[in-house]
Amino acid sequence: MSISARNQLKGKVTNVKKGVITAEVVVDIGGGNHITSIVSLESIEDLGIKEGSEVTALVKSTSVLLLA
Amino acid sequence: MSISARNQLKGKVTNVKKGVITAEVVVDIGGGNHITSIVSLESIEDLGIKEGSEVTALVKSTSVLLLA
Amino acid sequence: MSISARNQLKGKVTNVKKGVITAEVVVDIGGGNHITSIVSLESIEDLGIKEGSEVTALVKSTSVLLLA
Amino acid sequence: MSISARNQLKGKVTNVKKGVITAEVVVDIGGGNHITSIVSLESIEDLGIKEGSEVTALVKSTSVLLLA
Amino acid sequence: MSISARNQLKGKVTNVKKGVITAEVVVDIGGGNHITSIVSLESIEDLGIKEGSEVTALVKSTSVLLLA
Amino acid sequence: MSISARNQLKGKVTNVKKGVITAEVVVDIGGGNHITSIVSLESIEDLGIKEGSEVTALVKSTSVLLLA
Repeated sequence: MSISARNQLKGKVTNVKKGVITAEVVVDIGGGNHITSIVSLESIEDLGIKEGSEVTALVKSTSVLLLA
Repeated sequence: MSISARNQLKGKVTNVKKGVITAEVVVDIGGGNHITSIVSLESIEDLGIKEGSEVTALVKSTSVLLLA
Repeated sequence: MSISARNQLKGKVTNVKKGVITAEVVVDIGGGNHITSIVSLESIEDLGIKEGSEVTALVKSTSVLLLA
Repeated sequence: MSISARNQLKGKVTNVKKGVITAEVVVDIGGGNHITSIVSLESIEDLGIKEGSEVTALVKSTSVLLLA
Repeated sequence: MSISARNQLKGKVTNVKKGVITAEVVVDIGGGNHITSIVSLESIEDLGIKEGSEVTALVKSTSVLLLA
Repeated sequence: MSISARNQLKGKVTNVKKGVITAEVVVDIGGGNHITSIVSLESIEDLGIKEGSEVTALVKSTSVLLLA
């Protein structure tokens, strides 16, 4: 199965912070870069995401802004 | 000036493809990772973005999905 | 592999319209409902999506507005 | 009045969970499908959305990813 | 009928540019401010949006970044 | 430095409400219009945003829906 998202960044979860509805997950994608994701708390629990989990961060191209 | 976006990935533009309304820009962010962005054609022209430009790709945390 | 997106709607592609940068894909998800997606043209080609393809439409919860 | 969003899915609210800033609303859209939406808590209160409310879930085409 | 989007900016369309899949619409919202929207070409045609049309631009709070 | 976002609305913060993961910021952009933004709590703290701060609200064109 493949996903249309052009940006698929593999990494390891370095931090998970849980709120009431949402949770914030930080992913080390290598090269000195980190990706921070805010997803529903429910999805974190369904996927069993915790510190150390191997995950892929997905970003649709239309969600990326550029600074130049 | 600072921007609220948690994800700010610096890199060099490796490809620009122009459509009628939008344009697709590929940015090499190092560590073997690339970010693809679809922005308005007008913004590419205003910012003078072309192959070789140094840019920062910005992604709001709420726009990131996770695959685990 | 599981995806954090809370909305995963399975269906069959009923129409694909291609632009220069983006493409529009219509998916019949049953119950009389259709989902229209605009993704990059490149992703349609990579995934081999065409009329009749079985696909899953993914929508992050934070991308859904409500009308009441 | 009409809205540009290509995806307008009518349904009935089956669950509302309130956080501090956001709230999560689950909508049964028929055909065995549900849509989960995260909106501001304030909007839930303004629109009077609660279990049993008839609502329409709106999703812009550019917010839909595809899995194939 | 009310919409959950916290940002509802009324104005008059000052420009419409049509592409193959998407269209770009500029709306004068007063106070010297303009809003540019990229929507599907199909939605522009369905809603009959053209120069001079009175429209409301809708933006979900989670789609707004801040620069400070 | 310039940003690709077509919508850059300058204003003054009139309210900040903090949750666990996210925060809601209201910005008066003049002409009787206000913009509400939900960003990560962390970004509010990093940027030192509080009531009275001068900020610019950024919205990508693809995040704007139209009502006509």
